[in-house]
Amino acid sequence: MLATTTTANNGVNVGALLGAREALAQVPEAAQFRWRTTCTWMNGTHSHSTVQSFFGLGGEQSHKARFSFDADHPELFAAEDNGPTPVEYVLVGLGACLTAGIAAVAQHRNIQLRSVSATIEGSMDIQGILGMDRDVRNGFDGIKVTFKIDADATPDEIRALVAQSQKRSAVYDILTNPTDVIVEVN
Amino acid sequence: MLATTTTANNGVNVGALLGAREALAQVPEAAQFRWRTTCTWMNGTHSHSTVQSFFGLGGEQSHKARFSFDADHPELFAAEDNGPTPVEYVLVGLGACLTAGIAAVAQHRNIQLRSVSATIEGSMDIQGILGMDRDVRNGFDGIKVTFKIDADATPDEIRALVAQSQKRSAVYDILTNPTDVIVEVN
Repeated sequence: MLATTTTANNGVNVGALLGAREALAQVPEAAQFRWRTTCTWMNGTHSHSTVQSFFGLGGEQSHKARFSFDADHPELFAAEDNGPTPVEYVLVGLGACLTAGIAAVAQHRNIQLRSVSATIEGSMDIQGILGMDRDVRNGFDGIKVTFKIDADATPDEIRALVAQSQKRSAVYDILTNPTDVIVEVN
Repeated sequence: MLATTTTANNGVNVGALLGAREALAQVPEAAQFRWRTTCTWMNGTHSHSTVQSFFGLGGEQSHKARFSFDADHPELFAAEDNGPTPVEYVLVGLGACLTAGIAAVAQHRNIQLRSVSATIEGSMDIQGILGMDRDVRNGFDGIKVTFKIDADATPDEIRALVAQSQKRSAVYDILTNPTDVIVEVN
């Protein structure tokens, strides 16, 4: 009887990523990236942000398109609700980062994914941002991410995929560890 | 000679926010909010997220519309660049949060804003996420926000606006301080 070898295809080019790793090992300064957005105040709590250029591999780079985002506060804060709140954008980043990581790790482990979905929920006591109680922080007091994954793998293998994605996730790191943020006025 | 009192209008209903603060002081449990997104894997590193429902003021709430977001990796990571990277969404959240705060604080201080714009840049050594060097973190090694503000105010008053916005910003807090993130598979 012949063994059949199936190759998972999750749409992630792991070969290219491993090649990049080898190339960057020779030229580590090419691994220094700078990601950017510009934000313009519209009115009230409504702002408009764009994402297009970034720096990496030693030079200026550009996304294929210019991506635009509106943010605002909801109507129950007496605002116009022209977009998600800023904190919801952070949750979008977290879900997207862990999900991309799951696809990349599954590809590397030759596990075929059929579907991956997640709910990401951040809890917050708004007495913080309203300045009502100085013992309440402004940000989330906790975030919970719940994945539902259908894949050609055992439950243990699926949990291991998620754990490895978490271990290499940029946004998971950004949320669970402090980052220096400098704010200047020009 | 009569003094003329001008009233700034930045489109933020500060009266409503102060009223909310009084109301929440009576019913602090109404200040417990839960912000959410759902994320669905599309293919490769491409995911699709939606933002609509949230919990607050003691019940389920909804944005006026369902907001949708694509995230992906850029072509130089051998991906399709269907949207910004997850970390760029985090920067969008930071810029939007500080900008909304500046408008709210300016309104409260009766300072008329004419324009507010910012560039937000996060630097990252991608040797972290590529697993090349365990001493390199996955996330940003630092973020720099640069505001340009035109307002009926002195440079010192403008700097004070930005400082107060920073002090009350949810996303600034989320980035500069650690948050517990629980990731589960259902």
